[in-house]
Formats: sequence, C-alpha cells, structure tokens
Amino acid sequence: MGMKARQPEMLVGDIDAAQCPSRVVLDHVTSRWGTLVLLMLRSGTHRFGELRRRIGSVSEKMLTQTLRVLEEDGFVQRTVFAEVPPRVEYALTEMGAEVAEHLAALGAWVEQNLPRVMAARGNKPL
Amino acid sequence: MGMKARQPEMLVGDIDAAQCPSRVVLDHVTSRWGTLVLLMLRSGTHRFGELRRRIGSVSEKMLTQTLRVLEEDGFVQRTVFAEVPPRVEYALTEMGAEVAEHLAALGAWVEQNLPRVMAARGNKPL
Repeated sequence: MGMKARQPEMLVGDIDAAQCPSRVVLDHVTSRWGTLVLLMLRSGTHRFGELRRRIGSVSEKMLTQTLRVLEEDGFVQRTVFAEVPPRVEYALTEMGAEVAEHLAALGAWVEQNLPRVMAARGNKPL
Repeated sequence: MGMKARQPEMLVGDIDAAQCPSRVVLDHVTSRWGTLVLLMLRSGTHRFGELRRRIGSVSEKMLTQTLRVLEEDGFVQRTVFAEVPPRVEYALTEMGAEVAEHLAALGAWVEQNLPRVMAARGNKPL
C-alpha cells in the first residue's frame, strides 16, 4: 500500500511508493482543472457556470468530472438548492481549504517567478 | 497575455487569466511525472535510470519528455559527462529547488492527510 506507520495507530501515505494512494490524491489536486477549481473556490462559493467562465477553457464534461472527484475526496462540498431550475453551488470543505492554501503558495510562486521562467526559456514559446 | 504590472518595470503572471503563460508553467510543475521528478531531485542528483526506477510507473518516453520540459523552464539542470557510454545526470536548479519546496509542502500535506481523504471517500476506491 505504500503506507508508513509513524505511530502505532496512525498510517500516513508515502509518495515515494509507486503504489501509494497518496499519489492518486496528489494527482487529483494537481490535475489541470482540479488546481484551478480549488484556487478559485478560495474566494468563496461558486456555481458551476461561474467556475466554467472563470476557468475559461474547460469543457462542461471535464469540469463536471473534476468537481465530482474533488467532492469524493472530501475537498469540495456540493449543495443543491430545491429551486426551479435547481441551483447547485460548490464550496471548499475545511480539508479543501487546507490543500488549497498549499496550491495558492505554489501558484503565487509561479506567478511571481514567471519572468525568470520566461528568461530561462529564451525564445522558446510556452 | 494575462500579465499584471505590479511595478512599472516588472510583469508577473495571473493564473486567473485563461491565456496567461503562468497556467502553462503551473501545468508543467504539477504534471503527473513533473511533480514526482521535482520531489525526487530534492534528495540530490539522479541519473535517468534512477529516476525511472524510483517513479516506478513511467515510460522512458514520458520521463524524457517531462525532463526536457523542466529543463527548458529552467527547473532542472541536465549534465552530460563525456564517458563511454555517456553519463547523464539531472539536478534541480536554484529555481527548481524553490518550486520543489512548495510541491514538497503540498506532498507532505497529502501524505499526512491521506487517512482523512480515505475516510471522506468511504468505501469508494481511489
């Protein structure tokens, strides 16, 4: 399983182990749309259409799938309001807010250091 | 371009903007193999075969492509030693070490919180 026993009663993941489920969870939160969804939900609850517009380049199918995975993992809370047509809202859970903080630090580093990366790339387009 | 001028002479990226190159760089460092390569190079220089063995599930072609992208972005330094057969080593650059710190924090969170995610998933396999 690629799990390490740190304390007798507690198992944690081990990303170094190819079979460890922590790699799958890492893939979910670092997936192309997963990361952007988690970052955008930091600013508060969003409806599906809002997320899709802000991300700007994701298909309805891919965004639906991304949100379902993040909901299954416990990072995103999906709330359906009994209206006609039904209103569906997405928000970060406490766990989602925690992981999103790490993604935000990573994203801020990339934003701030983009000129260094572009300089390293020389004329090579991204 | 999705670039924000913070100071007159400095442009930074804007991950909120669909066309911003910072999204592409974020994709590179959060790609399935990109993240694992950056994490593994934190422990020091590695040869291609060592990286491939430690990652455990990546094809030669995908690892080659991953390393080339990270080298182009300035995160990884590739050194070829004039031996027969040539020895090729990969190491983090200063910029690579910086971004890898953020990935390590994210990875540690995922490892430590894997039991919470598994609990949220109930019986649903990853």
